[in-house]
Amino acid sequence: MELLEICRQAKEVKQRIAALSTGQKNDALLAVADKLIKRRDRLTEANALDMENGRKNRMPEGLLDRLLLTDHRIEQMAEGLRQVVGLEDPVGEVLSMKKRPNGLMIGQKRVPLGVIGIIYESRPNVTADAFGLCFKTGNVVVLRGGKDAIHSNGAIVACIQEALEERGIPKEAICLITDTSRETARELMHMNGYVDVLIPRGGAGLIRTVVEHATIPVIETGTGNCHIYVDESADPDMALAIVCNAKTQRIGVCNACESLLVHEKIAAGFLPALERKLAEKQVEIRADEAARAVLGDASNVVPAEEADWGKEYLDYKISVKTVGSVEEAIAHINRYNTGHSEAIVTNDYARAQKFLDEVDAAAVYVNASTRFTDGFEFGFGAEIGISTQKLHARGPMGLLALTSTKYVIYGNGQVRE
Amino acid sequence: MELLEICRQAKEVKQRIAALSTGQKNDALLAVADKLIKRRDRLTEANALDMENGRKNRMPEGLLDRLLLTDHRIEQMAEGLRQVVGLEDPVGEVLSMKKRPNGLMIGQKRVPLGVIGIIYESRPNVTADAFGLCFKTGNVVVLRGGKDAIHSNGAIVACIQEALEERGIPKEAICLITDTSRETARELMHMNGYVDVLIPRGGAGLIRTVVEHATIPVIETGTGNCHIYVDESADPDMALAIVCNAKTQRIGVCNACESLLVHEKIAAGFLPALERKLAEKQVEIRADEAARAVLGDASNVVPAEEADWGKEYLDYKISVKTVGSVEEAIAHINRYNTGHSEAIVTNDYARAQKFLDEVDAAAVYVNASTRFTDGFEFGFGAEIGISTQKLHARGPMGLLALTSTKYVIYGNGQVRE
Repeated sequence: MELLEICRQAKEVKQRIAALSTGQKNDALLAVADKLIKRRDRLTEANALDMENGRKNRMPEGLLDRLLLTDHRIEQMAEGLRQVVGLEDPVGEVLSMKKRPNGLMIGQKRVPLGVIGIIYESRPNVTADAFGLCFKTGNVVVLRGGKDAIHSNGAIVACIQEALEERGIPKEAICLITDTSRETARELMHMNGYVDVLIPRGGAGLIRTVVEHATIPVIETGTGNCHIYVDESADPDMALAIVCNAKTQRIGVCNACESLLVHEKIAAGFLPALERKLAEKQVEIRADEAARAVLGDASNVVPAEEADWGKEYLDYKISVKTVGSVEEAIAHINRYNTGHSEAIVTNDYARAQKFLDEVDAAAVYVNASTRFTDGFEFGFGAEIGISTQKLHARGPMGLLALTSTKYVIYGNGQVRE
Repeated sequence: MELLEICRQAKEVKQRIAALSTGQKNDALLAVADKLIKRRDRLTEANALDMENGRKNRMPEGLLDRLLLTDHRIEQMAEGLRQVVGLEDPVGEVLSMKKRPNGLMIGQKRVPLGVIGIIYESRPNVTADAFGLCFKTGNVVVLRGGKDAIHSNGAIVACIQEALEERGIPKEAICLITDTSRETARELMHMNGYVDVLIPRGGAGLIRTVVEHATIPVIETGTGNCHIYVDESADPDMALAIVCNAKTQRIGVCNACESLLVHEKIAAGFLPALERKLAEKQVEIRADEAARAVLGDASNVVPAEEADWGKEYLDYKISVKTVGSVEEAIAHINRYNTGHSEAIVTNDYARAQKFLDEVDAAAVYVNASTRFTDGFEFGFGAEIGISTQKLHARGPMGLLALTSTKYVIYGNGQVRE
C-alpha cells in the first residue's frame, strides 16, 4: 500500500481509537498478548527468514542476536503488553479546571497525540512495545521498521491486527510501512496533517537524519555523552563504585558514562585506583596530560585528543580530564554534553546544588550512577525513549509523553467585549 | 555581526541569564520599562525612518499603522513589561519529588528553555513583548524582525541592552539579527546546538516556511479556521450573539469564526435572522445549497465552493453549511479545521460532551465565543502566541510554555545492578 494511503487510514481511525475506554484498551492489550503466544510459531517462522537473510548479508553477530526472536523473547513481548495494562491511563483527566471572572469554566483535558510515527532499526520487539504504549494512550501508531526485520515485524503486526479485529477495534490502530526504502522514510517525515509526531528510535545517524529532514514535529531521543565529575570532597570508594558502574555495567547504552572529570587535588589518589578497576574490564582510558602524569605508563592509558571530549564511545573506553574546580567541570560539561545524564560525586553541599542548578541536561545526579536514567528506574513502568530535547518531554518518556492536552471550556452564552 | 557569532554569544550567556533570581529579573524589567519611556524620542526618531521607508515602498495603510510607534504605544510597551513583573516566575519550582525504592530522590525542576529564536513581522512592539516574557522565564531571546521595522527594532533593543548593562546583566540576553535577508532567516532555522526552540509569529506564509525548513524544534502558532456549530437544541438568541461576536468583534484575528455549521432542523428559523444581523456589518455569507434555499436572494449570500470550507478568511466573510447531526458537524470540523478553536451552541448535555470529547482542537467551547482563546482571557497574564500543534504546548502560551524541566536526582552512592 502506498504511504499516503497508510497515513490516510491512520488519520481516519484516530478518533475511534482515541474514544476507546481504558477497559476496552486493556482488554485488547491482553488479547494481543495472548495472540502473540498463540501465534509464536508464525512469528519464529517469519523471523527465521530475516535471520537467514541476515546471515546471507553477513550481519554482525551482535545485530543477529538483536534480530532473533525466541519463544522466550516472544513471551517477554507478551509480558510487556500485560504490564502496560497495569499502568494508569492518563487520557481523559481534566487538569486545573478554573472559573474565570466572566463565568467561563476553563480546564485542560489530557488527550492522545493522535497518530504517532516511529522510525526504528533492528529489534522486532520494538514493534510490540511501541504499539502497547501508543495504544494504551489512545494513539494510532505508524511503524517504519528496518529492512532486516521486515518479516518479523510483518508477522507481529498481523498478530496484533488479528487480535484487534476480533474485538471490533479497527486494525489500523497499528500500521506497518512495508516499503523500507529511504525515499519512503523521507516521505513519512513530511506527512504533516496526517502524522502528529515522529519518534526516531535507533543510532545517532538515524536520529540526525530525522531531525534534519522532518517537517513533522520530532521528539529527539537518544545519544548520551554522559559525564561524571568527581569532586575533591567525594568519598573515593563511592566515586569508584559509581564510575565503574556507569561505565561498565552495560556498554552501548545511552546513559553509560563516557567521560570522567576529576578534581586535580584528588587525581593522584583516585585515578590509579580507578585505572586498576577499569583495567579488569579492559576499559581504555583516554586521558589528558595531567591525568597521564598520574597514571604513568599503564598499558590501557592513551592520550586524549580534542575529539574525545565530544564522543559517545558506546564501548569499553572512557575519556578522563582533570579540572581545577566545579565551575570548570560544569563549563566543560555544558560545552560537550548531549543533554542526557550528568553526575557529580561530592560531599560538598554548595557544589552539589551548583551542579544540579547549572548543568544543562535532562537528568542531573548527585552521588549516583547515570545508568538510572530510564523509564522503569524512574518509576514510570514503561519507556518509549529518552528525550534529549527541551520541548514537550525531557528525559525518560513514559505514557504521559505520548499525550497532549486540549482546553475544554464550558460557557453559558459568553461573548467577548 | 554574523549570525553564527550572534547565536554563539546568546548560548554563551544563557547560563547566566538562567541563574538570575526573580528579584533581579523583575528589577531589570522595571528598569527596561523606564528606559523605554526615557528614550522615547530616540524610538520615535528611529520609527520615523521606518515609516518614511514604508511610505516610499507604498506599504498599505493598515501595515503602516501597525508599524507606527507613538508615545502612547511606547507607554503601552513599558506597561506590558511592568505587568510581566507581576506574574509568577515559574522557573526553579521542583515538581513531584519522589523517593524510589533504592532511596534515590527524583524530582522535576522547571528550567528555562535556553535560547529562544523568534521570527516575526511588522509590529515593533513584539520586540519588547517577546523580550519581557523570555527574560522573565530566564531565557535568552534571539530576534529576527522584519526589514520594514529594522530601525524601530534596533532602537528598542538598544534601550533594553542599555538598561540591562546598567544593572550588570549581559546585554546579550536580547540579540537582534540586523541582516533581514531570507538567507539569514533560513540559517537561523538551522542553528541546532545554539538555539533551543524557534517561535514564528506572523502570517500563515511565514509559519509554513519555518515549519518546512527548520531543523530546530518549532512551536507552530497561529492560523485558525474556527467553526461554530449551532445545534437544533440551541437557544437561538445565544447562538446569534455568539456567532456575530466570534465573526465580527474583531476581524483578522486567528480566533475569529470563519465557518458556521447549523443543524438542518433549525436552519429555516435561524439563518435568516443571522443573515440580517451579519448584513449590518457587511459580512458576506458563502452558503451551501440548503442554506441558500433558506436565505433566498439576499444580496450578501453567494454559493460556497469546496475551497471555502478550508479557508481562514480573516475578513468580513463566513462560510455556512447545514448538517444533519452533531456527528456530521464533528466530522466536518475534524476534516477542515486547523486545530485552533471550535464551539458548539447547544442545550443538549450528551451532544455538548460529545463535541468536547471528539473535536480535535486546542480549545473546544460549549456556548461561548471562540474569541476567548487568548492568554489574557485564559488568565495567564501574558501570551507569546497560540500553539496549534500538539507537542509541548497547545493553545494560548503563557510563561509556562517558555520553560522546560530537568530531572534532579539526589543519591547516596546508588549504582545500578
